[in-house]
Amino acid sequence: MGKNFVKDITEMEDDFAQWYTDVVTKAELIDYSSVRGSMIIRPYGFSLWENIKSELDQQIKKTGHENVYMPLFIPESLLQKEKDHIEGFAPEVAWVTHGGEEELEEKLCVRPTSEVLFGEHFKNIIHSYRDLPKLYNQWANVVRWEKTTRPFLRTLEFLWQEGHTCHETDEEAHEETIKMINVYAELCENILAIPVVKGKKTDKEKFAGAKYTYTIESLMHDGKALQSGTSHHLGDGFANAFGIQFTNRGGNLQYVQQTSWGFTTRIIGAMIMVHGDNRGLVIPPKVAPTQVIIIPIAQHKEGVLDFAYDLKRSLAKTVRVDIDASDKKPGWKFNEYEMKGIPLRLEVGPKEIDKNQVVLVRRDTGEKFFVKLEGLRNNLEKLLDDIQTNLFARAKDHLLKNSQEAVSFEQFKSDLEAHSGFIKAMWCGGRDCEDKIKEETGATSRCIPFEQQSLSTTCIYCTKPAKHMVYWAKAY
Amino acid sequence: MGKNFVKDITEMEDDFAQWYTDVVTKAELIDYSSVRGSMIIRPYGFSLWENIKSELDQQIKKTGHENVYMPLFIPESLLQKEKDHIEGFAPEVAWVTHGGEEELEEKLCVRPTSEVLFGEHFKNIIHSYRDLPKLYNQWANVVRWEKTTRPFLRTLEFLWQEGHTCHETDEEAHEETIKMINVYAELCENILAIPVVKGKKTDKEKFAGAKYTYTIESLMHDGKALQSGTSHHLGDGFANAFGIQFTNRGGNLQYVQQTSWGFTTRIIGAMIMVHGDNRGLVIPPKVAPTQVIIIPIAQHKEGVLDFAYDLKRSLAKTVRVDIDASDKKPGWKFNEYEMKGIPLRLEVGPKEIDKNQVVLVRRDTGEKFFVKLEGLRNNLEKLLDDIQTNLFARAKDHLLKNSQEAVSFEQFKSDLEAHSGFIKAMWCGGRDCEDKIKEETGATSRCIPFEQQSLSTTCIYCTKPAKHMVYWAKAY
Repeated sequence: MGKNFVKDITEMEDDFAQWYTDVVTKAELIDYSSVRGSMIIRPYGFSLWENIKSELDQQIKKTGHENVYMPLFIPESLLQKEKDHIEGFAPEVAWVTHGGEEELEEKLCVRPTSEVLFGEHFKNIIHSYRDLPKLYNQWANVVRWEKTTRPFLRTLEFLWQEGHTCHETDEEAHEETIKMINVYAELCENILAIPVVKGKKTDKEKFAGAKYTYTIESLMHDGKALQSGTSHHLGDGFANAFGIQFTNRGGNLQYVQQTSWGFTTRIIGAMIMVHGDNRGLVIPPKVAPTQVIIIPIAQHKEGVLDFAYDLKRSLAKTVRVDIDASDKKPGWKFNEYEMKGIPLRLEVGPKEIDKNQVVLVRRDTGEKFFVKLEGLRNNLEKLLDDIQTNLFARAKDHLLKNSQEAVSFEQFKSDLEAHSGFIKAMWCGGRDCEDKIKEETGATSRCIPFEQQSLSTTCIYCTKPAKHMVYWAKAY
Repeated sequence: MGKNFVKDITEMEDDFAQWYTDVVTKAELIDYSSVRGSMIIRPYGFSLWENIKSELDQQIKKTGHENVYMPLFIPESLLQKEKDHIEGFAPEVAWVTHGGEEELEEKLCVRPTSEVLFGEHFKNIIHSYRDLPKLYNQWANVVRWEKTTRPFLRTLEFLWQEGHTCHETDEEAHEETIKMINVYAELCENILAIPVVKGKKTDKEKFAGAKYTYTIESLMHDGKALQSGTSHHLGDGFANAFGIQFTNRGGNLQYVQQTSWGFTTRIIGAMIMVHGDNRGLVIPPKVAPTQVIIIPIAQHKEGVLDFAYDLKRSLAKTVRVDIDASDKKPGWKFNEYEMKGIPLRLEVGPKEIDKNQVVLVRRDTGEKFFVKLEGLRNNLEKLLDDIQTNLFARAKDHLLKNSQEAVSFEQFKSDLEAHSGFIKAMWCGGRDCEDKIKEETGATSRCIPFEQQSLSTTCIYCTKPAKHMVYWAKAY
């Protein structure tokens, strides 16, 4: 990896935020526009989203859900039906006040999420326990009026899926909530190679209108946490607000129990900040739009391009392969595809053709291999598997190394100053302590993990009896 | 088809508009909500759209286009850059004037189409002829502030894809425009079994900001036409407005030539109105979410349900098959799946099991077949092919029978009164005649078809020399 090919990007150790901005633009994931806080998702960025979406959509359907599409606009009166919900979302919605040339009688908000639209619809279509469960999902764009924005991580508009379900019992809704947080966790770990901590949000951090919220939290390269997917048990709050009742098996009217769960384009930001390095993106093979990029060497020499294109056609049967036969210099091409995080580079020139072999270079480790054509396909598949496994192992190692345990608030603060990352610490369950910890350290409660440990018997802040171990961190 | 199973829907001959509304709601394609003019696309409706989208997306990618995603909002100043475009769209856009608790300095419109966003982006990323062509597409929701709306046909918000491309030459842009109108036509004819007339829009009917517009026009069961897809050559109008220039092969700065093209959820309305009948929807097999519905008969009898489920598992390898083993009566189920337009019904009960056969009923013709289990799969595939072919042939026959030729304006008017449908008639090319024809008959120019005929030498209205043969019709 000659220094002569180092790209014009900020080193992540110098300025992580600038490194991130450099990478998302130079790797051509996004572009800015004159629309404040919104981003243009360019072909490379969008094909990543298409791959993620396709994987998740399969899982959503396999678990029995059906896709639907709800309106973009929500009349103000509809948004106001559930009290906690409107309080949570009102400060960050965009309002449509004029249509064509006329002023609207009732203003419409651009959906920040669609619980109220689903609520109204569910009331129409659910009458009996025979109509349950209703397991719906929608792929959509939503808008939240954010003051400061960053591509993928926090934008005025983003793309996501939002699941909305109705059930007969609290227990069944609970199982659904757990099932979907597990679907998200598996997608993150198995496909995106992003290790996550699964747990419950504190009441302070739960979704506006939910009974409780489950979350998966991941850890970025700079030690900040990122909420990567949430699943909410809504109880019967929305059902009460919207009158979603059904005749139960005993013949009595009863409110449904609901859930909702969402996963967004934000995860692309996580993928960048978990796997990327100073040469740019590193994309996990399972989700990479191009897994192998062929770079012909001395391509003006007879036979090289023919050979390279034949190779591409033959490999295309088993891997996602592309070729760059442009007249740019090989060094520039190496640069470009490293920046784009293509898992494997395949070089082939006259020397390789003579020897009946190719050169393979791993993006994750920089390792170089000379591989005979015979058996190349198997080798590629094996290498791609290795890269996927290595990326996850590396990220898991980083997460574990950057998860400290603190048993005193002094230690909490000094740990957080010394190494950013997760701090595991006991908590009494009080909102006051949670607020104070945030105020004094900048760290928020990320989750009450499913896998509890007993680090001590007292709250890290107030020293009253502890109820839970909590993951704390500064977060995106 | 016993009358006892006739559904509670209006007959199309009595009130076609009411028939349409009955069908879209009773077949559970859509639901209404408190959002005026918007619709909820329910699972069955959305799975139709997913199938259409998947077919079209494949063709869009196969023809070299890449998917991207642009912002939902357009600042007023950006929308105003191209004069014809803003004039065309300003009367029908929704305006966001407030974000969170603050009033915006510049109002934002919710995209009615995205030419201006692409224009701004293209300016950023195109510098040299080496950057061309740029072949982009986006799947998105758009909003047009319509006064009167109908599900799928005309809604405040709809789903679509919009292609946006940049080229070096006028000729290349022209070829792209033709290529994409052909992609739409093939999708309509080969997948949706909707025959179309391909042609050019008159200047009056072309897209706001385009040099010219190609269109495909289809004919509904009630004789009204429906514009089913359009492809625009934008020339260099947007390029001038946005300054999209590149260094050409001769080393000089030059404006790009652009195209845009779109296909929407409207096509679902066309599919309903072309194939549907008084028992409900009729869905072409190639796009049907369920191609075969298994209805167990006397399902309480031993072995029936096991047999039916085994059959489902075995058939699922080659067709999209579902089973309804609910405790509703078979007659109700027949009703329901006829309403939903499932191409084939498969009945199996004790008698059939004894005889090692099943009963198949075609949705399009009502024909009933007794088919041995051996060879059932081949028979199903053949029948589904036949249904697809028959639906297209039937619709094509309807289109041809309802395309009259008129050589005098008197004949034009009396033909239109006698039979709704297309009227082919010569036209001088003058805007005045086009306006007058609309005013006096309600028919608009649908297109100047690629396949021209010379019906006479004079304009049907002014009797001056004719330039083109035009398809005229009342239209959705």
